[in-house]
Amino acid sequence: MKKAKSRDYSRRFERGMRVLKRMGRQNLMLNQNALSPEMYEMSVGHLFGDVWGRPGLSLRDRQLVTLAANIAMARPTGNHSHYLSAMRLGITKRQIIEVMIQVGHYCGWPTLSNAVRQFTDILEEEKERKKAQRAGKPFRSRLL
Amino acid sequence: MKKAKSRDYSRRFERGMRVLKRMGRQNLMLNQNALSPEMYEMSVGHLFGDVWGRPGLSLRDRQLVTLAANIAMARPTGNHSHYLSAMRLGITKRQIIEVMIQVGHYCGWPTLSNAVRQFTDILEEEKERKKAQRAGKPFRSRLL
Amino acid sequence: MKKAKSRDYSRRFERGMRVLKRMGRQNLMLNQNALSPEMYEMSVGHLFGDVWGRPGLSLRDRQLVTLAANIAMARPTGNHSHYLSAMRLGITKRQIIEVMIQVGHYCGWPTLSNAVRQFTDILEEEKERKKAQRAGKPFRSRLL
Amino acid sequence: MKKAKSRDYSRRFERGMRVLKRMGRQNLMLNQNALSPEMYEMSVGHLFGDVWGRPGLSLRDRQLVTLAANIAMARPTGNHSHYLSAMRLGITKRQIIEVMIQVGHYCGWPTLSNAVRQFTDILEEEKERKKAQRAGKPFRSRLL
Amino acid sequence: MKKAKSRDYSRRFERGMRVLKRMGRQNLMLNQNALSPEMYEMSVGHLFGDVWGRPGLSLRDRQLVTLAANIAMARPTGNHSHYLSAMRLGITKRQIIEVMIQVGHYCGWPTLSNAVRQFTDILEEEKERKKAQRAGKPFRSRLL
Amino acid sequence: MKKAKSRDYSRRFERGMRVLKRMGRQNLMLNQNALSPEMYEMSVGHLFGDVWGRPGLSLRDRQLVTLAANIAMARPTGNHSHYLSAMRLGITKRQIIEVMIQVGHYCGWPTLSNAVRQFTDILEEEKERKKAQRAGKPFRSRLL
Repeated sequence: MKKAKSRDYSRRFERGMRVLKRMGRQNLMLNQNALSPEMYEMSVGHLFGDVWGRPGLSLRDRQLVTLAANIAMARPTGNHSHYLSAMRLGITKRQIIEVMIQVGHYCGWPTLSNAVRQFTDILEEEKERKKAQRAGKPFRSRLL
Repeated sequence: MKKAKSRDYSRRFERGMRVLKRMGRQNLMLNQNALSPEMYEMSVGHLFGDVWGRPGLSLRDRQLVTLAANIAMARPTGNHSHYLSAMRLGITKRQIIEVMIQVGHYCGWPTLSNAVRQFTDILEEEKERKKAQRAGKPFRSRLL
Repeated sequence: MKKAKSRDYSRRFERGMRVLKRMGRQNLMLNQNALSPEMYEMSVGHLFGDVWGRPGLSLRDRQLVTLAANIAMARPTGNHSHYLSAMRLGITKRQIIEVMIQVGHYCGWPTLSNAVRQFTDILEEEKERKKAQRAGKPFRSRLL
Repeated sequence: MKKAKSRDYSRRFERGMRVLKRMGRQNLMLNQNALSPEMYEMSVGHLFGDVWGRPGLSLRDRQLVTLAANIAMARPTGNHSHYLSAMRLGITKRQIIEVMIQVGHYCGWPTLSNAVRQFTDILEEEKERKKAQRAGKPFRSRLL
Repeated sequence: MKKAKSRDYSRRFERGMRVLKRMGRQNLMLNQNALSPEMYEMSVGHLFGDVWGRPGLSLRDRQLVTLAANIAMARPTGNHSHYLSAMRLGITKRQIIEVMIQVGHYCGWPTLSNAVRQFTDILEEEKERKKAQRAGKPFRSRLL
Repeated sequence: MKKAKSRDYSRRFERGMRVLKRMGRQNLMLNQNALSPEMYEMSVGHLFGDVWGRPGLSLRDRQLVTLAANIAMARPTGNHSHYLSAMRLGITKRQIIEVMIQVGHYCGWPTLSNAVRQFTDILEEEKERKKAQRAGKPFRSRLL
């Protein structure tokens, strides 16, 4: 059983990595890997392989739902990357703004203004990152 | 100014009522009207007329986003009606289940199980309501 | 030391009961007493005696602040009684409605509608309670 | 792969059911099964088989942690059953009361009083259930 | 209708700006304007013009209520500015401290200590800002 | 009475300081002291002296419960220090990781990843602190 399990778990992991790549998120959650490889495996394999990879709702809709839930909770970290993957999955900047307005009315104006701040910060940082990339310089995100 | 304002506010209200009707929500929030007509006017006119009625995101997507934010917050009331309007706007039962699973992973398993309970309860009540309707009997929701 | 402490703690308790009486809350939290007398003593002595009884902010302002924080959190229980003590401390029905609108914009429309529901329910129950009282019948709250 | 996966998933499910039985929770989450068998499988297999079943923290400590997190969130449903499984796993009534006091100071007094209410309600219901059992009558929980 | 509406909306905006000026908040939310002028218009016109500008509760009481709700939610951003506008509206430092203690008991000690940190930080920054102002140097807030 | 009270309160304070020292937390909450000595006295005397110092649950279990509640709430500040005191009280790094995984499933994956970030940051900072200490240099925490 152990063997069958680990074989299957590595497949979950592969499925998860495929989803992460489609979303441009393959280089995230590495601090989980550094702290606990099993935790990282669970995040990639279960959360991305088994949950995000489920049929029944498009990846774009899952991203919309996740963005809404995260803006709602207004946690200090964890949402910056979702603005980037949202745009990668075809959700426009205008639509992201409308999500903020919609969630802001269901979870409070400070969730809207916190989201504006986070979205503005990550768009700024993306500019810096691209500039560093063009100059061939290394770049380390302060937000992701 | 006062007059112009109230004229415009009644138009906001009309816009809001049109959105509410498309969503099958025109008979909700009446306890707000009983407690404070101005509060009700603000809910219809601002929340539904000016926010839900905005362009830039489809009504279906706004509903998906609202469902996600409300499942995330797991508040004791206020979400039952959104399962009904979601189905009215073409979000399938399967998609609602996937929203629960997705949000459950971003906001905790109890938000998933609370949503299952609420969705199951409202589907039950809808059956009762239709039965009462066929029998020509009055029906008062315990959930909405 | 033990003795001095228990003497002082009973004074805290007395101070707390005096505050509770001014607020009309002296018959609440009895299920805490049934489960754990020490927990009840801490609620009366510390929360009401040492916190609500502090100078520096009027009892009316403490109630306004508490009402706002509780409406914000939208927990399933614990807020019904605060609408009653608020009115006892001179906060008008109109002011309570304005608190709901204000908090609703900072914590989301469902916190407003949940508060409307709770306030409406407790006002209903108060009518029932008074009716039972006039008829000399016992009355047991379902909400407090 | 599909086959290997489903084989392994049924083992996850078995592992999960074993954990659930040790906790006396094997008859819960059945409304998930009624709504979506896949969701139920994920709850049993992933949450109980793969998470609760992990080494590194005792079942008793996982229950303590879960009780604390759930009391903290004060969601309307989902916590009643954890008081029962906590007692099953050897956490005493006194310790549960201390968890309430501890969490109440980190998440607010209403989380304490909400927990007292839920714990009192489930202890009441357990008495009813045992009485019904002795009388050979069916019993349906209103809380679980 | 369009015309009447936009006319009225600019009046809402003017009303909102008047409230913002009384509170010393007229230079805030500019990142909303940069991202989406319509969002900014809604924040100024609806939140400040139509909500904060309502009769029925004094501006000081609305600020007290908002401070309480925001301390309760302990969101990462959005509250620093409210300590400043509170003092501008006549709420004393001592009263702000009492609000923290009161909310801390209803929403958890970490909401108190988070508020202490935010209040201390903004008071520090105000000193820096005044110093820069006296020296005729530009100053950009890291907190607002 | 006044005198008896202040005598007892200083004993509460002493009890609280003893608990804080066992947890290695005696140099925290000093910004509370700077802002309001009475608030600091309440934090030390009530929270640590009267709550953490209670019998009925071991200090290690209170820490586990507090860690869980704080990870659950994902507030921007206030949790970094609890990872340190947890390790001081004998909770291992592995157990802390398991608490994160457990809470992450009850309160959402972003609470897990926020906790990973905070735990990683404080472990980094501890290394810096020790390095500074060895070099005889002063060190000021950015996190505590």
